[in-house]
Amino acid sequence: MPTPIHILGFSGSLRRGSCNSALLRVAAGVLPEKVTLEIYDLASIPLYNGDLESEGLPVAVLEFRARIKAADALLVATPEYNYSIPGVLKNAIDWASRPPEQPFDGKPLAMMGTAGGLGGARAQYHLRQVLVCLNAHALNKPEVQIPRAWEKFDQNGTPTDPEIAKSVASLVQALAGWTRTLRGEG
Amino acid sequence: MPTPIHILGFSGSLRRGSCNSALLRVAAGVLPEKVTLEIYDLASIPLYNGDLESEGLPVAVLEFRARIKAADALLVATPEYNYSIPGVLKNAIDWASRPPEQPFDGKPLAMMGTAGGLGGARAQYHLRQVLVCLNAHALNKPEVQIPRAWEKFDQNGTPTDPEIAKSVASLVQALAGWTRTLRGEG
Amino acid sequence: MPTPIHILGFSGSLRRGSCNSALLRVAAGVLPEKVTLEIYDLASIPLYNGDLESEGLPVAVLEFRARIKAADALLVATPEYNYSIPGVLKNAIDWASRPPEQPFDGKPLAMMGTAGGLGGARAQYHLRQVLVCLNAHALNKPEVQIPRAWEKFDQNGTPTDPEIAKSVASLVQALAGWTRTLRGEG
Amino acid sequence: MPTPIHILGFSGSLRRGSCNSALLRVAAGVLPEKVTLEIYDLASIPLYNGDLESEGLPVAVLEFRARIKAADALLVATPEYNYSIPGVLKNAIDWASRPPEQPFDGKPLAMMGTAGGLGGARAQYHLRQVLVCLNAHALNKPEVQIPRAWEKFDQNGTPTDPEIAKSVASLVQALAGWTRTLRGEG
Repeated sequence: MPTPIHILGFSGSLRRGSCNSALLRVAAGVLPEKVTLEIYDLASIPLYNGDLESEGLPVAVLEFRARIKAADALLVATPEYNYSIPGVLKNAIDWASRPPEQPFDGKPLAMMGTAGGLGGARAQYHLRQVLVCLNAHALNKPEVQIPRAWEKFDQNGTPTDPEIAKSVASLVQALAGWTRTLRGEG
Repeated sequence: MPTPIHILGFSGSLRRGSCNSALLRVAAGVLPEKVTLEIYDLASIPLYNGDLESEGLPVAVLEFRARIKAADALLVATPEYNYSIPGVLKNAIDWASRPPEQPFDGKPLAMMGTAGGLGGARAQYHLRQVLVCLNAHALNKPEVQIPRAWEKFDQNGTPTDPEIAKSVASLVQALAGWTRTLRGEG
Repeated sequence: MPTPIHILGFSGSLRRGSCNSALLRVAAGVLPEKVTLEIYDLASIPLYNGDLESEGLPVAVLEFRARIKAADALLVATPEYNYSIPGVLKNAIDWASRPPEQPFDGKPLAMMGTAGGLGGARAQYHLRQVLVCLNAHALNKPEVQIPRAWEKFDQNGTPTDPEIAKSVASLVQALAGWTRTLRGEG
Repeated sequence: MPTPIHILGFSGSLRRGSCNSALLRVAAGVLPEKVTLEIYDLASIPLYNGDLESEGLPVAVLEFRARIKAADALLVATPEYNYSIPGVLKNAIDWASRPPEQPFDGKPLAMMGTAGGLGGARAQYHLRQVLVCLNAHALNKPEVQIPRAWEKFDQNGTPTDPEIAKSVASLVQALAGWTRTLRGEG
């Protein structure tokens, strides 16, 4: 019988109608048995500033770090801006990774995204390099990189293409398997 | 006789004592004849949010874009956070590159930085990929990647190693030459 | 009246029916006035070995270097293997860049390719990093990354989609303009 | 009691006195209990050519693939050429990954290298992207990137700095742990 897995999901887009944030809601609807998903909104995390940090980590950052630490696995939805990850997503990671405790260390993680022609691939390869630094264990496959978001989501960011839920379901399934492998339940 | 060049410089660190921001001040002290440098502080640029954007570009973003557009060349000082560029720097670029006008298009640009063991190299190669998207013309050489910042700057972020000013001077010199080449004055 | 430009083209695939090599032949058919293209075949360049090098550069390597040096600009057609540039292409570059003279230094260069889902994008961004080292001046735009080669070329590697010749023509046109800009004829 | 682990090691340099190949010999001297290391020489693998492949995989390629398949884990020593992995190493991977069977799939892998100023870091991040394609499970940490090889190895490529053996030992130790975790013995 599979052990429970609690996933923390977050999106690199703050826009209400974001297709990338919608992918997290899609994930919430296709979870395997014993897997739960909590979605964390990065909107309240301020811009990183070392002077601000020296006064103590902001409450939103402490909260984000605590959620990462408490999770068994992470699921990142990321758009691609200018051939890389959004500043908003990188900024949240920059805060979350500050000493003394680096909560990404050893966490299983999967990523997904939707963007223009390449579906966010360039952002994901940059994110993978960041994850080497953080010692998060990024899932290799499947790679969920959905091109031409504008054809596949309605105005509320709800997917209209049923293939999307299938892709996301296979990613979450693989993340659950990867998490159990890393736990020694492989 | 060389034509004038006005450079806009900005730093990926918001910390007052930042060694990377200090590199811009070093540059201001070693400018070739006919070259001027204006330093722009990214602190007032908010986190990117498409909903906020749909209400109109924030004043700080409009200001940053106007400065980029007015400049003949750009000089970026960037720390490296988590093997990539800081979220703060990427966020400013994400805002500045929004339609209708993308002010980086065709601009000569040089980068420099100081960080831990690799001197910010990983951040710079990510930044270079971003610049392909923006069609900015990044200078290839020299690469100014100063390792072990803590040994080479005092507590105010002022460099104590005279090699730093030499490196920065050669970068600014090369940027001026590159700018004139791209102007057809090569 | 435009000055003449001689381009050296080479492909990262050695296969006779290669779609990437075909792109070079397409380029030969859409050259602007005053632009010539010579295609160099990398097949005779051996695997790099420092012991072999210490006996003197192989004839094929000397020939490749001389062609690069004599060219005004370079045009690289590259497939993508395993999310990066082919070993064959990298190996030819590794030989060509050995001391005492590095013939890529200062050369204008454009790249194009066809591959699976992403059209060779991942290979091209790796190649761009290599070109920073070589101080070649890579054209930013247009990016010619043609996905799903199998739908767009016949069994001899001849393109069946007329959009391909248009893309290649715009790349060669831009490379000619870039070469003249870097020559000071901008 | 730990289960046995057989590691296959290979180097991206074919030079007899290579410092990178020497790192594999260093590894052979610092293996943990129950861990064995076999070193495979890439010299006999020809340049990749799809026409050659269509006549059947070359014997050296079949041999390399069989060794990879038989190994429990992989250890790659790679120099950095032109800010990326050597063509020789990429070429061997390109052959080894051809259908019908892709032997890197699911293999634990660690990398190490020595090079100039950055110790081969740029090559390693490119290799990591290749490994995502191959679905090999690359160890994140420690990163063994040894700068200024010329100060730390004698003319036969034997390390003169005792820190090198310590770094390599910690890498092999971590690779053994990672292999056992992925096996479900974590």
